[in-house]
Amino acid sequence: MNALPDSSIASLVDVQSQADPRQVAIQQVGVRGVRHPVRVAADAGAAQETVARWTLTVALPAEKKATHMSRFMELLAAHRHEAMKPARLCAMAESMLDLLQAGAGDITVDFPYFIDKAAPMTGARSLMDYQVGWEAHARQGRRTDFSLRVVVPVTSLCPCSKAISRYGAHNQRSQVTVRLDYAAAPALDLDRLIGDIEACGSSQLWGLLKRADEKFVTEQAYENPKFVEDLVRDVAIGLRRLSGVTAFEVAVENFESIHNHSAYAVVRGGPQA
Amino acid sequence: MNALPDSSIASLVDVQSQADPRQVAIQQVGVRGVRHPVRVAADAGAAQETVARWTLTVALPAEKKATHMSRFMELLAAHRHEAMKPARLCAMAESMLDLLQAGAGDITVDFPYFIDKAAPMTGARSLMDYQVGWEAHARQGRRTDFSLRVVVPVTSLCPCSKAISRYGAHNQRSQVTVRLDYAAAPALDLDRLIGDIEACGSSQLWGLLKRADEKFVTEQAYENPKFVEDLVRDVAIGLRRLSGVTAFEVAVENFESIHNHSAYAVVRGGPQA
Amino acid sequence: MNALPDSSIASLVDVQSQADPRQVAIQQVGVRGVRHPVRVAADAGAAQETVARWTLTVALPAEKKATHMSRFMELLAAHRHEAMKPARLCAMAESMLDLLQAGAGDITVDFPYFIDKAAPMTGARSLMDYQVGWEAHARQGRRTDFSLRVVVPVTSLCPCSKAISRYGAHNQRSQVTVRLDYAAAPALDLDRLIGDIEACGSSQLWGLLKRADEKFVTEQAYENPKFVEDLVRDVAIGLRRLSGVTAFEVAVENFESIHNHSAYAVVRGGPQA
Amino acid sequence: MNALPDSSIASLVDVQSQADPRQVAIQQVGVRGVRHPVRVAADAGAAQETVARWTLTVALPAEKKATHMSRFMELLAAHRHEAMKPARLCAMAESMLDLLQAGAGDITVDFPYFIDKAAPMTGARSLMDYQVGWEAHARQGRRTDFSLRVVVPVTSLCPCSKAISRYGAHNQRSQVTVRLDYAAAPALDLDRLIGDIEACGSSQLWGLLKRADEKFVTEQAYENPKFVEDLVRDVAIGLRRLSGVTAFEVAVENFESIHNHSAYAVVRGGPQA
Repeated sequence: MNALPDSSIASLVDVQSQADPRQVAIQQVGVRGVRHPVRVAADAGAAQETVARWTLTVALPAEKKATHMSRFMELLAAHRHEAMKPARLCAMAESMLDLLQAGAGDITVDFPYFIDKAAPMTGARSLMDYQVGWEAHARQGRRTDFSLRVVVPVTSLCPCSKAISRYGAHNQRSQVTVRLDYAAAPALDLDRLIGDIEACGSSQLWGLLKRADEKFVTEQAYENPKFVEDLVRDVAIGLRRLSGVTAFEVAVENFESIHNHSAYAVVRGGPQA
Repeated sequence: MNALPDSSIASLVDVQSQADPRQVAIQQVGVRGVRHPVRVAADAGAAQETVARWTLTVALPAEKKATHMSRFMELLAAHRHEAMKPARLCAMAESMLDLLQAGAGDITVDFPYFIDKAAPMTGARSLMDYQVGWEAHARQGRRTDFSLRVVVPVTSLCPCSKAISRYGAHNQRSQVTVRLDYAAAPALDLDRLIGDIEACGSSQLWGLLKRADEKFVTEQAYENPKFVEDLVRDVAIGLRRLSGVTAFEVAVENFESIHNHSAYAVVRGGPQA
Repeated sequence: MNALPDSSIASLVDVQSQADPRQVAIQQVGVRGVRHPVRVAADAGAAQETVARWTLTVALPAEKKATHMSRFMELLAAHRHEAMKPARLCAMAESMLDLLQAGAGDITVDFPYFIDKAAPMTGARSLMDYQVGWEAHARQGRRTDFSLRVVVPVTSLCPCSKAISRYGAHNQRSQVTVRLDYAAAPALDLDRLIGDIEACGSSQLWGLLKRADEKFVTEQAYENPKFVEDLVRDVAIGLRRLSGVTAFEVAVENFESIHNHSAYAVVRGGPQA
Repeated sequence: MNALPDSSIASLVDVQSQADPRQVAIQQVGVRGVRHPVRVAADAGAAQETVARWTLTVALPAEKKATHMSRFMELLAAHRHEAMKPARLCAMAESMLDLLQAGAGDITVDFPYFIDKAAPMTGARSLMDYQVGWEAHARQGRRTDFSLRVVVPVTSLCPCSKAISRYGAHNQRSQVTVRLDYAAAPALDLDRLIGDIEACGSSQLWGLLKRADEKFVTEQAYENPKFVEDLVRDVAIGLRRLSGVTAFEVAVENFESIHNHSAYAVVRGGPQA
């Protein structure tokens, strides 16, 4: 395969840099759904290797025809081996503004994150997986905003079912999806945040439970019934107390074991006055 | 299977109606992901039978412990055979406020929608499918808001690839996702809205194309190259002119034929001043 | 838009009909993932309107370059208003062999199917949704085979958790996926088949349950604990007895409420000797 | 949280080990959809860290009531830091037979895999992602079988569209899914296998292309048109020649840029006679 002579490369017309007459500014343009490895440094421990979906976009002024898509991929490649934490993602978004000559830009990265947990009675260790998303919103001349999203699965056990039944109570896996907005990159302790959310379920989940653990988990859930409303409220109360958070949303979806649809609840709010 | 005696039913404790001490109001609580048939009346023609995913939620005041989930399903069953249009979905959301004794409530319904299209040269007829979502936001004492979401697939052909190559140009399927907010239920002509969006692609798509149609579509796309930025701008210009729309968002995702990720652009705006 | 003159259409080269030198026969070629409405007649009642994903393929001999994709879509359009039952899908697959001049051909159609159920105590009516797939395998000179796939969600309650715990027992939604192969199109009673599968769960599911129903369902599940192994065996025993079935597979996936993964079991077999 | 006294743990009934009277053997029972990190050693280079979905199952004889689910998770944890290659996955499946006292057992692991590629003209480097699945099938007293699945995205450009149009040709992203069965764990060179499959497309894909690369890729695809039938045949011819393969399947899905559905083709076969 022969390379084009340099003169040929130089002469390739740069359509993207032409002017645009339509007078429509674009809030976001870039690449979406890029699957790429990332090293995540989300707590005090060592960075963990995982695989992310990335979206990188910039704002495009009305008079510019198009952006340069390949530069987003160059940016991604340049940060491949970095231990990524919120402050570094914000810095990466700020450097994107220069690279793309843009006034605003957003990076979102979404990845599975693992915590090594000990089973409640036997202490047997196993990994639990959580889905985490980070977003950095850079704007020229302003501090870069940061948002966090985490999906935490727990058990919920229905208080009504327990109250009206002679024995038993329906329970199921629930997903607690929390979104936190920060005015600046936080010093994050993801394991602690996840642990605090898990503590709001009827029980938390583990990858590995021995018989003594299963007994513990079953009884704990039965002693601790929660409607979807209870779960969403208890998580919200905890989120209100987080420092540095400017706004939050918590959505809980119970994959009901007695229906083929979900019970669902959302609370949005800000920091406690 | 024996029925419980009436006295037994009457005595079942109503846990949901108890008071809650946590002082956390819930913006949305209800059922999510309910798969249910719906008859959609989205234009001048006959209603079409399709299958939807429904989410129905109400706001719950801080002092109430829980909502009554089964009533959402009763509401859905009661409207099963109705020809659903925006005004009827808004009325359904308003009746939900009474049924659940709520100050606010939202219904979203998401369904595939079909248009019978004629191929561009031969006129051969086939159905094209589009994903459509409707949302009604009811608030006590206010007019019910309505939002529309529609996903329209088109072809996009890259202007840069065409300009720099001796022949050919990479092209691909693109998804145009439009969201429109209305202050009140609109008199919707979904087929015309979709047609106007399709007209912004390098070419539109059909279920069935004969050879003469394929020649036409290929040449039309080549004559009509569009960056993701061109597509999103051209759709935005059309949306600005729609009457009754208070805000819009258009997002375009090109499933690039030369990459394993997407090019992506978003424009948000309001009606033209 | 002007039509091409006839001479122009006539002269379009038919690349698909050329000869191929590679000596590789293709077992299946056609269209996949076509979303299209269908009227399903699966039991004694009236046909129900639903929306399906279709895949239509034929075998292509080694010496033929390509098939004619548009004919699959014409076939689909021609059967749009038919009340589809197994025998008609088989006949449709047989007519596809003529239309495409093929020695073998397969049609698969996958759709949500609804059953109007009465809650166990109050009799309150609601729809439950099930995912159903039909496949017809036509071969020149042989009887057309038929296969059925149905996904039935149920509740499963863990016998170990119940046995070792002082109270309660973890339970969850489970998916029972049954595949049945028939040597010829069966006279199907889909509602009865689904009902028989549901009866193997710790409890079946309903769209709508009132309080008395929820008490019944909770207690029934507690009285009727099932491992994933129990569920898969009990369904298999029922499937063995079905007449006309040449082979079956039942896979059960429990979306464990105490883990973030599933328990899973599969039994494959044939009719009882 | 107090631990149960030992006597209490010891006395927990082992429901799973009881006898079962139903006389139904279970071909597969275990855990499914476990998300867990894995280090993959798929070629001559260093192992790469990625995130997998695991399914681990064993056969259960008719007379045994249930398997011990927690042991699958222990096995997974024990192999967490190992550099996984086909021979090691087979050894892991064989050790699972002992651990679960089973006559047969299967492990499947499905993960994104990355290759560092150089753009065709500029040599700019970027990662491309591929979805890979490995399966080990262990049977007491027999050699363990191994299967490989890999999904390779490429560009396809339509020969018919090119032949009948004055200029241009529709093209799109295509997915080539290859399955290879081996009688024993192969010495795999995954990068080379993927490269050989990519070479069958109208063009291969890259994460990052500069303008000179885009010109090259566009022209190469136009010079190299392929029907879905051409693609599936060319891949099949290459697979027939692989040593150690007892059976193969190649499925190609073209996400047509002119339709909202796919063109699709499958060839199944064995090694060349």
